[in-house]
Amino acid sequence: MGVHNSRLVKLFCWFVVVTAFFLNGFLIGWYARPTQTQSNSDAESHGYLRDFLDEMQADNIKQYLRKFTRLPHLAGTEQNHRLALEIRDEWLRFGLDSVDIVPYDVLLSYPNQTRPNYISIVDDQGSEVFNTSLSEPVPEGYEDISDIVPPYSAFSAKGQPEGDLVYVNYGRTEDFFQLEREMGINCTGKIVIARYGKIFRGNKVKNAILAGATGIILFSDPADYCAPGVKTYPDGWNLPGGGAQRGNVLNLNGAGDPLTPGYPAKEYTYRLSVDKGVGLPKIPVHPIGYTDAANLLKNMGGLIPPNNWKGDLNISYRIGPGFTAEFTTQKVRMNIHTNNQVTRIYNVIGKIRGAVEPDRYVILGGHRDAWVFGGIDPVTGAAVVHESVRSAGKLVNQGWRPRRTIIFASWDAEEFGLLGSTEWAEDNSRLLQERGVAYINADSAIEGTYTLRIDCTPSLHSLVYDVTKQIGSPDEEHAGISLYESWHKKDNWTGDRDAPRISKLGSGSDFEAYFIRLGIASGRARYTKDRKTERYSSYPVYHSVYETFELVERFYDPSFRKLLAVAQVRGGLIFQLADSQLLPLDCNEYAFSLNKYSRSIFQLAQKHQGDLLKYQVSFDSLFSAVDNFTAAARDFHDRLTHLDLTNPMEVRMVNDQMMYLERAFVDPLGLPGRPFYRHIIFAPSSHNKYAGESFPGIYDAMFDIENSEDPAAAWEEVKRQISVAAFTVHAAATTLMPAA
Amino acid sequence: MGVHNSRLVKLFCWFVVVTAFFLNGFLIGWYARPTQTQSNSDAESHGYLRDFLDEMQADNIKQYLRKFTRLPHLAGTEQNHRLALEIRDEWLRFGLDSVDIVPYDVLLSYPNQTRPNYISIVDDQGSEVFNTSLSEPVPEGYEDISDIVPPYSAFSAKGQPEGDLVYVNYGRTEDFFQLEREMGINCTGKIVIARYGKIFRGNKVKNAILAGATGIILFSDPADYCAPGVKTYPDGWNLPGGGAQRGNVLNLNGAGDPLTPGYPAKEYTYRLSVDKGVGLPKIPVHPIGYTDAANLLKNMGGLIPPNNWKGDLNISYRIGPGFTAEFTTQKVRMNIHTNNQVTRIYNVIGKIRGAVEPDRYVILGGHRDAWVFGGIDPVTGAAVVHESVRSAGKLVNQGWRPRRTIIFASWDAEEFGLLGSTEWAEDNSRLLQERGVAYINADSAIEGTYTLRIDCTPSLHSLVYDVTKQIGSPDEEHAGISLYESWHKKDNWTGDRDAPRISKLGSGSDFEAYFIRLGIASGRARYTKDRKTERYSSYPVYHSVYETFELVERFYDPSFRKLLAVAQVRGGLIFQLADSQLLPLDCNEYAFSLNKYSRSIFQLAQKHQGDLLKYQVSFDSLFSAVDNFTAAARDFHDRLTHLDLTNPMEVRMVNDQMMYLERAFVDPLGLPGRPFYRHIIFAPSSHNKYAGESFPGIYDAMFDIENSEDPAAAWEEVKRQISVAAFTVHAAATTLMPAA
Repeated sequence: MGVHNSRLVKLFCWFVVVTAFFLNGFLIGWYARPTQTQSNSDAESHGYLRDFLDEMQADNIKQYLRKFTRLPHLAGTEQNHRLALEIRDEWLRFGLDSVDIVPYDVLLSYPNQTRPNYISIVDDQGSEVFNTSLSEPVPEGYEDISDIVPPYSAFSAKGQPEGDLVYVNYGRTEDFFQLEREMGINCTGKIVIARYGKIFRGNKVKNAILAGATGIILFSDPADYCAPGVKTYPDGWNLPGGGAQRGNVLNLNGAGDPLTPGYPAKEYTYRLSVDKGVGLPKIPVHPIGYTDAANLLKNMGGLIPPNNWKGDLNISYRIGPGFTAEFTTQKVRMNIHTNNQVTRIYNVIGKIRGAVEPDRYVILGGHRDAWVFGGIDPVTGAAVVHESVRSAGKLVNQGWRPRRTIIFASWDAEEFGLLGSTEWAEDNSRLLQERGVAYINADSAIEGTYTLRIDCTPSLHSLVYDVTKQIGSPDEEHAGISLYESWHKKDNWTGDRDAPRISKLGSGSDFEAYFIRLGIASGRARYTKDRKTERYSSYPVYHSVYETFELVERFYDPSFRKLLAVAQVRGGLIFQLADSQLLPLDCNEYAFSLNKYSRSIFQLAQKHQGDLLKYQVSFDSLFSAVDNFTAAARDFHDRLTHLDLTNPMEVRMVNDQMMYLERAFVDPLGLPGRPFYRHIIFAPSSHNKYAGESFPGIYDAMFDIENSEDPAAAWEEVKRQISVAAFTVHAAATTLMPAA
Repeated sequence: MGVHNSRLVKLFCWFVVVTAFFLNGFLIGWYARPTQTQSNSDAESHGYLRDFLDEMQADNIKQYLRKFTRLPHLAGTEQNHRLALEIRDEWLRFGLDSVDIVPYDVLLSYPNQTRPNYISIVDDQGSEVFNTSLSEPVPEGYEDISDIVPPYSAFSAKGQPEGDLVYVNYGRTEDFFQLEREMGINCTGKIVIARYGKIFRGNKVKNAILAGATGIILFSDPADYCAPGVKTYPDGWNLPGGGAQRGNVLNLNGAGDPLTPGYPAKEYTYRLSVDKGVGLPKIPVHPIGYTDAANLLKNMGGLIPPNNWKGDLNISYRIGPGFTAEFTTQKVRMNIHTNNQVTRIYNVIGKIRGAVEPDRYVILGGHRDAWVFGGIDPVTGAAVVHESVRSAGKLVNQGWRPRRTIIFASWDAEEFGLLGSTEWAEDNSRLLQERGVAYINADSAIEGTYTLRIDCTPSLHSLVYDVTKQIGSPDEEHAGISLYESWHKKDNWTGDRDAPRISKLGSGSDFEAYFIRLGIASGRARYTKDRKTERYSSYPVYHSVYETFELVERFYDPSFRKLLAVAQVRGGLIFQLADSQLLPLDCNEYAFSLNKYSRSIFQLAQKHQGDLLKYQVSFDSLFSAVDNFTAAARDFHDRLTHLDLTNPMEVRMVNDQMMYLERAFVDPLGLPGRPFYRHIIFAPSSHNKYAGESFPGIYDAMFDIENSEDPAAAWEEVKRQISVAAFTVHAAATTLMPAA
């Protein structure tokens, strides 16, 4: 090998080495460069989820519950404003990017401070021979608290109607029909008395007005507000005889502030005159406890009601009208002086800005205002939100930032008709419509000690199961297993599938405007009673002065582990919705549910088989639309498995499809006569705001069949509603198909 | 320097060289790697725009106009279906990705084939002493054509009302007020006769019904349908005395098919009964030419009208009621047998799938159906769309693909109330709401020979100027300069600014559902007359049998260069909207226009200064909202200049903000009583569908002030509308602010 050769070899080596370094450099450069702005991979995100869940502490929730229930904080009062400022300051301290107080001026309603509301029995001289109590006996330890608002029906008309009493059971549509048709009782000019329970109180009031009543008294019957074998508060969690349920008696159907329907109640906003306000009852309404109720009911005359109209008072229930025997000349008089007034309320809105898609919003919202102390409603919810904010803030301080923007909301004036949340939704309707990914509601976190209760849109089912599998069960008898497992054992979704039961959303809390008006995927979570054995309405002391910190600490959740589990469920949902690269929404679950609902509404129609033939009513178009949707959802999820996750535009496009799926079920024309209830798949029926119905338009039209004097016209409306539902499901299917 | 040292130097050199190569490699690798999926850069896109514009040929447009005007192609006829299939086949051949025929079953209206419509003068024996003609004299060359529908008012009620005639001028709201208040004429039970012009014919019919008329005759007065010094067709382009204007007389207010308001008219869709259909007039209506009109009017009695009520007929105009002198016993009888019937119509929908954002839609749509041959309306538009499709298809065949999806639409049944376009908008409402970037309308491309006319949303102003600067002027006297320049010379936007004038969108063509209902940025372009000197309505032979190919070839555009220019404007807008990386929408222009409109509606209110004080009407909230919007728009465009264009998510987010800006002006509750007119900034007033008003809610409320019997209530409505407008502008501003 000569010099020449050796030089060549050397040169060659040089070349090889240099090329190798170049290539090395090139490759390192090529791969080092990020191809997209990606926050956390989903694996990293999962680690942060664990941290987020583990950071939350039962004891913190307890402290927050203690702190936020010391004083009454009714909407529109100085105390509730102070609480808003306190929460804002703490959320800022916890680490949120921004926290704002957002005020609105809405119509609220308070008792007259100098002329108390009460109900009398008056003799034929007009003298009051019996008066109901002016307030509830205050629980021990709270004797020195001022500003406890006495039980009243918010937005009641003023007035002093006098007349014979008619007992109308729960005051449901069917109760009034039974009264009129089977018992031949005409309520015109009467004062009706209805027991609380089964349906939203505002629906009872509406029914009473339709029946011609001049006033309505609402009472808590022990049959509905005392669990067997449980003592009354403070010795147990049953409602004492002197306790009564406050509450608004509006029929807003989602309008928010009665004076500014459709628009936020800002300073410049045009306000209807109060006589044209939405949903305000035209008659006096007043709530009483069962001790007072017994006195009003015990001397009633008239028919003996059927057994399922009888409660557990130690009297013989009678329908009336009026009193019996020596009491026939006595009348009942209501004395109601409650005032409506436009009042400033305050939402607290906190944000964590999204790292990758700041224009996508995931919302955790719950109300802050309480009728009195809010021991359960809403502070179990507000305390849970507070702890979620603290935990999220801690992650932010450590450098984490979710993919999407998270919004935390402390709503005001929920008790007066979901006013704070609805006004904010109206104020931000354009942003929410274009950018709202999901809304998780955070009202009362507990109403029983048995197991988890979830009401949510079908596309959240899979995420709920996923999240609850990552949370430990708080049930003492189920230590060491997941929440999912204990929930599954206690409340299996029998019939449909072997999984924990999930319910439909109704209304009655702040998700309403977000879900039913705007079509944002929504859900709620709380601990609940055993629906198979516990038959009382709500929880017994609901909306009474006995909703205290001690009620929760002694009876509902002494360890605060159930509230912690609820915090982890709500928080876990928000976290995953905000941080997953692909939205954790399951369109196949929506298809599954639509299938079930369409079969169920078809079944409901089968009791009119003759009419179905006679009026040529067919559900085929609906079934066909559901089949079409089912195929579109399946194909969509199939395509998802082949998605290029490194292509940010492709990810954004499929996420948009998932986000807008819920929106596609919104009909801009709304349900008949209810312009703010626009979700064609889920809304309360017109007969009970609390219960969510599927295909509410069809449901309500069918409900009317039995009461209509023109069945041909009534069946035409059913057919129209079937057509609207079929179109809506078809339209939703198009949103899941390839874009062009 | 020893060996040791020399080796060190050598090693150092090695190190430097190797490192240099590595770094070189790294940097090349780093920068070589594409950071996003980008179709064409904007520079490339610009080159394709030039190709796209240059590919279009005047002669092709001429051939298409010739081909599509040989036979009548009324909506719902076999011939118009055949034309749809032909267009589908050609669009596929041109290179679109997909072309579909999309049918709907809508309510149309045709004359009874065996009982012709006409109007008689009857004597006191009931004998017909004069009858109007049953058809128009057919132009030369078309004598053998069958299926020419005679002049009629589509959707007229059937009937044979008889009575005295009242001349109501143009039949405007103010004309009827003048009749009733100043002349003391009551139209109840009368047949009214109105001249065409100034407002949409459907508004005339509505006013006649409100006035109590039992029938309405519409005629073309030479004052409104003949230009001075111009001969009648075929010797010129004026309307002959035997010609008459067809047209629908609905008051749909954007509902689309009268039997399926809000929903697409598919097979399964629920249909209202015809008596409940939207907008159908309850009285007979019929159009006549000026030869017939002279015979009806010449013997009228009663008051002499004011001069501005007199047309150019060689008679002495009288108000009536009824005839004069020896004719007083004569009456007028209408004989109308027109039938409504549900009929299948066919849209043609063609697509070019977007390369980067297939889920963003840019639409070029125009109708295909014509009253007879459609020489101007719509085929000048349809021929232009056809040539645009051919040019775009050619680019696609060369490998080009736009960033966003382009949709081309050939609508059916526009003449019957914008039915094809509205049903398709309803059918695809969810997709359009989430994904619609812009809609460019392509109805008649020429109505005069003077200069360009653009009606569009303010955010398109800058793009229109940009595009017209890239197109040559077709004006013979302006050879060699741009369309922008010749347009600027002929129609300067005096007062506001030194630029060509652009007008507001009204209604009366297929953009309506897209713009006014859905809030998609829209515009239209055509060649027009000189508005300063030419005072006739529309173009004289509008909707007559004289709209032929020869009309355009001989009088309107012999070189077809004006139609080519319009094709390039419409096509250029679509191209830039579909292919620019950043959407070419200008929010500052919207702010500028809102400023102007708010000042103008404020000015309009100043004629009621006393009332403004008395009822405390203030426009401050609106001015403040406009200021807020102006600042938000300015900041938005400032931020745009700092945008990282290599970050696809950032680009998508700002484009979404621009796309959704127009949507933000839509109020889901709609304008009062007009649920499908939902744009708060632009809609026709309730008094004339053709003219676009800004702040139509406020405008209509102010219009009502003068006619209201309860001014306090009328001013309350003005205040409410100001509040709605202020809120809407504020809400739109929020969409331009940073997302979180």
